[in-house]
Amino acid sequence: MSIHPTAIIDKSAIIENNVSIGPFSIVYSNVVIKKNTKIESYCQIGYPSSNTNISESLVVENNSLIRSNSIIYSSSLLGSYLVTGHNVVIRENTIAGRNVQIGTNSEIQGDCSIGNYVKFQSGVFVGKNTIIKDFVWILPNVILTNDPTPPSNILTGPTINEYAVICAGSIILPGINIGMGAVVGAMSCVTRDVREGYCVRGNPAVEIKLASEIMRRDILNEPAYPWTKRFIRGYPESITESWNEN
Amino acid sequence: MSIHPTAIIDKSAIIENNVSIGPFSIVYSNVVIKKNTKIESYCQIGYPSSNTNISESLVVENNSLIRSNSIIYSSSLLGSYLVTGHNVVIRENTIAGRNVQIGTNSEIQGDCSIGNYVKFQSGVFVGKNTIIKDFVWILPNVILTNDPTPPSNILTGPTINEYAVICAGSIILPGINIGMGAVVGAMSCVTRDVREGYCVRGNPAVEIKLASEIMRRDILNEPAYPWTKRFIRGYPESITESWNEN
Amino acid sequence: MSIHPTAIIDKSAIIENNVSIGPFSIVYSNVVIKKNTKIESYCQIGYPSSNTNISESLVVENNSLIRSNSIIYSSSLLGSYLVTGHNVVIRENTIAGRNVQIGTNSEIQGDCSIGNYVKFQSGVFVGKNTIIKDFVWILPNVILTNDPTPPSNILTGPTINEYAVICAGSIILPGINIGMGAVVGAMSCVTRDVREGYCVRGNPAVEIKLASEIMRRDILNEPAYPWTKRFIRGYPESITESWNEN
Repeated sequence: MSIHPTAIIDKSAIIENNVSIGPFSIVYSNVVIKKNTKIESYCQIGYPSSNTNISESLVVENNSLIRSNSIIYSSSLLGSYLVTGHNVVIRENTIAGRNVQIGTNSEIQGDCSIGNYVKFQSGVFVGKNTIIKDFVWILPNVILTNDPTPPSNILTGPTINEYAVICAGSIILPGINIGMGAVVGAMSCVTRDVREGYCVRGNPAVEIKLASEIMRRDILNEPAYPWTKRFIRGYPESITESWNEN
Repeated sequence: MSIHPTAIIDKSAIIENNVSIGPFSIVYSNVVIKKNTKIESYCQIGYPSSNTNISESLVVENNSLIRSNSIIYSSSLLGSYLVTGHNVVIRENTIAGRNVQIGTNSEIQGDCSIGNYVKFQSGVFVGKNTIIKDFVWILPNVILTNDPTPPSNILTGPTINEYAVICAGSIILPGINIGMGAVVGAMSCVTRDVREGYCVRGNPAVEIKLASEIMRRDILNEPAYPWTKRFIRGYPESITESWNEN
Repeated sequence: MSIHPTAIIDKSAIIENNVSIGPFSIVYSNVVIKKNTKIESYCQIGYPSSNTNISESLVVENNSLIRSNSIIYSSSLLGSYLVTGHNVVIRENTIAGRNVQIGTNSEIQGDCSIGNYVKFQSGVFVGKNTIIKDFVWILPNVILTNDPTPPSNILTGPTINEYAVICAGSIILPGINIGMGAVVGAMSCVTRDVREGYCVRGNPAVEIKLASEIMRRDILNEPAYPWTKRFIRGYPESITESWNEN
């Protein structure tokens, strides 16, 4: 355990073996940080929610890396091997699986469910009540909205299914379902559900073709999707072998 | 008054009763923080403008909440009950009314006038010389621009009138006037003035219908706008009663 | 030399005369900060790259201003008179010329080449392998992408040529070439190369006219582009005189 002398740690926080906490970071009460996790500098872990109905623990699972200036609210459960960029905000009631990556400047507003191996690149905004399943890719500055007629009392997030890819700068409207393995082109505004395995693009987004009809740029006459046939970096063999079998 | 020992407070700053200032925050000279205001951690209050013509005070009115990592420049007047998210930047010569909310990662570039009860969600960018009137809603990642032919010497911000709603990811071009109660759909690029009470959407945005023709999703055959007929959370009764009368 | 007592400076860092470093900032090893440079508060200079192949120095040249909360990774060479906004992230292997400005909340992902007098406004995202030449203007929330079929192993950034202007909220797709002096309108999605001196706009962007056919708003019957004929603030006379001759 290596806690920088300038860090401020609440006495009640549970900090396991081989955790490191960087300069000027703050760990609040009601927090569990599991072993081998690294909290960098200027982080806030277990930031108290202003929602007074919420008082559960924040658990940051083992082997995670929380980069500097990130703020994680109380009352979430974040799976092992989480990696964040800088300036990430994760609010209350976020349940995340293992091996999730959340890029710099991204904000997850809470009340969200995030699967395993989900990758958010930089500047992604995830509204409350969003559901994101395993192996999803969300590219820079994507917005997942939840209010069909702002302002509203009832918020309905989108659902992004397994292996889907949402390209840069796209907006998914409230309650929309993005099918498994679908691809949303850059700067699309998705106003209707996207069918499994299809590619949509535009504002409003329309169906263009099957994702499997998108071709690779680096190899002639090879389909780019499903991406699991050509991109395995960062996934364990137990998973990538199953991708090859299908 | 509760000032964390790691905070750095200029001797000339005027800090009223029952103000709290969190760890690692900095309060510069020429600042007045009124009673019952909470400044969280890593904030900079009264950050000196690089514009040397500007040397007036920053006043943060009573009962405000400035969340962590926010930076407020000198020479602004911010009304009571201001609430900011994290990482908010408010630059010089911003005049804001009471009960304003400014979401995480938003930046207000200064020389702006903001009314009462204006709500900015996350990641909003407000260019210099913008005018925003009372009860406006601005959703995530909206951009209010001010340069018609970049780069320019003369900047002209848009004017957003009372009760208007600008949905996620929209851009309002320089000098555009958004009429009272208008609704701008998500990912719209507004290149022409929007008439009072109308809904526009698209890139470039075109008039779709009256805002009052947009229907609620949660109740059949009920119009969603004006939103003041169905959404009163966070406003005092003295205001919401007048909304019901009309 | 003026180093705040709360700053944490690695002993091996080379800090030249008349450098100032603000409260709560961190300077890592293998860093050279040249004379007259100002590092504000909460900055991280020489943040260690997680890419273990990279171990070269970070050099921040003379007379630079790094505003608060900015993070500059190791293994970059940043030219003199650099000015950053707040919360800027510059990652490894960024080679920048002199007099570059990088606005608040912008992120440069590294492996990039940036010319002299390039101006990034707020919230700009620059993906790896981007090339930006001298005198380019990039307005708020522009995204420069690099992955043609996400996720990919090979990333290809765009090239933005001299004097080009990319307006607010636009996305440049991977490998796209923006010609010298071209203007990309707000909220454009640029899917094809843009010819030198042309203006494109829309999603997908199409050629609208010559940039020289765009008129000024402040003076009748005067072309707005090339902007070098009407905007000289911040450039030295040796440069602006050459602009007038042409």
